[in-house]
Amino acid sequence: MMTYSYISHLSCSVCDLTFDDHEINQLCSCGAPLLVNYDLAKMKETTNKSDIGNRQPTLWRYHELLPIRNEENIVSLGEGMTPLIQTNKIGEDMSLNRLYIKDEGIIPTGTFKARGAAVGMSKAKELGIKQMAMPTNGNAGSAWSAYATRANIKQTVVMPNDSPEITKKECQLFNADVHIVDGLINDAGKIVKDHINDTGKYDVSTLKEPYRIEGKKTMGLEIAEQLDWTMPDVILYPTGGGVGLIGIYKALKELKEIGWVTGKLPRLVAVQSTNCAPIVKAWENGDTHSTIWKNSETIAFGINVPKALGDFLVLEAIEKTNGCAIAISDEDLLEEQQKVAAEEGLFICPEGAAVFSAARQLKQQQWIHADDVVICLNTGAGIKYPNTFDVDLPILNKNDRL
Amino acid sequence: MMTYSYISHLSCSVCDLTFDDHEINQLCSCGAPLLVNYDLAKMKETTNKSDIGNRQPTLWRYHELLPIRNEENIVSLGEGMTPLIQTNKIGEDMSLNRLYIKDEGIIPTGTFKARGAAVGMSKAKELGIKQMAMPTNGNAGSAWSAYATRANIKQTVVMPNDSPEITKKECQLFNADVHIVDGLINDAGKIVKDHINDTGKYDVSTLKEPYRIEGKKTMGLEIAEQLDWTMPDVILYPTGGGVGLIGIYKALKELKEIGWVTGKLPRLVAVQSTNCAPIVKAWENGDTHSTIWKNSETIAFGINVPKALGDFLVLEAIEKTNGCAIAISDEDLLEEQQKVAAEEGLFICPEGAAVFSAARQLKQQQWIHADDVVICLNTGAGIKYPNTFDVDLPILNKNDRL
Repeated sequence: MMTYSYISHLSCSVCDLTFDDHEINQLCSCGAPLLVNYDLAKMKETTNKSDIGNRQPTLWRYHELLPIRNEENIVSLGEGMTPLIQTNKIGEDMSLNRLYIKDEGIIPTGTFKARGAAVGMSKAKELGIKQMAMPTNGNAGSAWSAYATRANIKQTVVMPNDSPEITKKECQLFNADVHIVDGLINDAGKIVKDHINDTGKYDVSTLKEPYRIEGKKTMGLEIAEQLDWTMPDVILYPTGGGVGLIGIYKALKELKEIGWVTGKLPRLVAVQSTNCAPIVKAWENGDTHSTIWKNSETIAFGINVPKALGDFLVLEAIEKTNGCAIAISDEDLLEEQQKVAAEEGLFICPEGAAVFSAARQLKQQQWIHADDVVICLNTGAGIKYPNTFDVDLPILNKNDRL
Repeated sequence: MMTYSYISHLSCSVCDLTFDDHEINQLCSCGAPLLVNYDLAKMKETTNKSDIGNRQPTLWRYHELLPIRNEENIVSLGEGMTPLIQTNKIGEDMSLNRLYIKDEGIIPTGTFKARGAAVGMSKAKELGIKQMAMPTNGNAGSAWSAYATRANIKQTVVMPNDSPEITKKECQLFNADVHIVDGLINDAGKIVKDHINDTGKYDVSTLKEPYRIEGKKTMGLEIAEQLDWTMPDVILYPTGGGVGLIGIYKALKELKEIGWVTGKLPRLVAVQSTNCAPIVKAWENGDTHSTIWKNSETIAFGINVPKALGDFLVLEAIEKTNGCAIAISDEDLLEEQQKVAAEEGLFICPEGAAVFSAARQLKQQQWIHADDVVICLNTGAGIKYPNTFDVDLPILNKNDRL
């Protein structure tokens, strides 16, 4: 019989404890996030990368490296295998010859949050979870609510009042129990924490369950496959909670271990906002952990995270790959967003625009070289953020001529 | 050498004239749209459906059945191979056991218009076009503008003032020459027509160039492949201009001719709005052409087309497949949109919601049977239409508990 998943167990990202994935687990008793382990030696013997090519174009094509043991528990909206395409015109503008976008706008609910939600929800279903809760700045809430209702799991979401309007609508449409708080994400987090203490619901806050990373990991798996099982030189990632960067790093290490890719890991770049740059500050100081960023504010809502639970994992990924961290101003990212749209026909989100701006600046600083294979991760569709750009067009009468 | 495309020539959809696809062609001299022909006999000898499975997950995997002769002319944002997924919960609610959604929200620019634009723009590039113009209700304009700027082709767009705000922004971001008219789509069409007469620009209005159908056709190719090269029983399609329905019909006939599918074609259903139902009226009257629908109005903006140039082709496709035409009220489609979101985690567009409502009504009328394989075509992402749903949620204080 084919092994659907080579998951073996969970282990703490900090201490030596291990856990059984057949049981419900949240954080380690030491307070750190748990990571999923696979029996990679066995997988290497039985699975070949040439098996992958003619599977369905979703992230489930990598099921051996995902944590769901029984295929019947998969909750899917068709997510994954988002486009990896060359952006030659904007590349030329930056003097980069091999610049690519990984476009996570082309996915259910319009952002990369769908990956973590699909895998996290499928494992929750496998574990028999019936109720869960989370705080969100918007997009994670809408993704998790979509998959929750599909899985017949009741989702409770608490979000700040200034979350994007469309994400509030999505959560409500997806039948979640939605609450708006007159405060920030940490206020939402506190209300969720109290609620979970009161009710014993499953906590699906960022990194408080171990499976969201596995979903985000598939971005790294796809990039490798889409580059014909080679590794790029640089991957730039907009870093709020940093789960995607942690996941991509984990994915590429796993692929190396099973021998599907070889050579040096790409240099990973954490891109933040100049108005919310805790990881950048910690990296510049040589610290292993970040400190909370006060009065953070940026139009790139998804990277407005003053202190991430997994900050040390992000910093480790950067350090181990000879990567770096860089902060981008709102002004620069908005200018870049318009350039990318005008040149490439891609309406990327502000977070994705920060990444392109970072590529431009790192090329200018000669940290990136002209022939590097550079991947800019665009985490969502620009159409979810209509207010980043205003139109003011003259109005013709019916009988006017151009 | 591999033949990239088996295109042979163009032929008129009404009279006997044929045309050379190496030259720029718009409508036939008789005024009817042109259709693309392929050397299917030769393709049948040289190409096998098993070749398709491990190609890239974009619509270009069907390049032999697409009109681009030289692969270098492809203009792509990674479009196609959108999810085909079962919607069992809403299916159960309708007493349908095999109900699927083909989700065209998961595509560049968020609507199925990307397909016609990708193929149409690639062929325009192959033909050496430098400037083009079109009227649009919104989504076609944004898709064509995206691909135009990517192809270095200058796009002029004229759109009604009440087009969705996001589509105006997209066109402007994508560097198109955008004009808003205080009027309806036919007023925009008149301005474009005058402008083309004045300038000689390439006219990419619906069906006035022959290649948009070929892009839309790929929805039919994908449905067949995703059902493992079998045909469904029923495909429901929201019908404005009807190009998608014409294209799906063309696709399935071509697949039959090359032997990749066998058996009866699916019954094709044209879904319209009760406030704009010219095709439905013509079908009920047994007419071969529709008459213009006066004072049309519906929240499903994409199917607000009072008279389609290809109406006779839509009516032919319905008739030849024993299909039908049905009109849905705004009230019914809005109710269905919320049901599909709440049950399935899918935020579909109003046009897609009309299709689900049509499936429900046709099941009630016993026109669709419980075990039919039924495909609902959702033409776009609900997030592009944020105003179809309002939220009114209570606001918590920071120290409140749930």
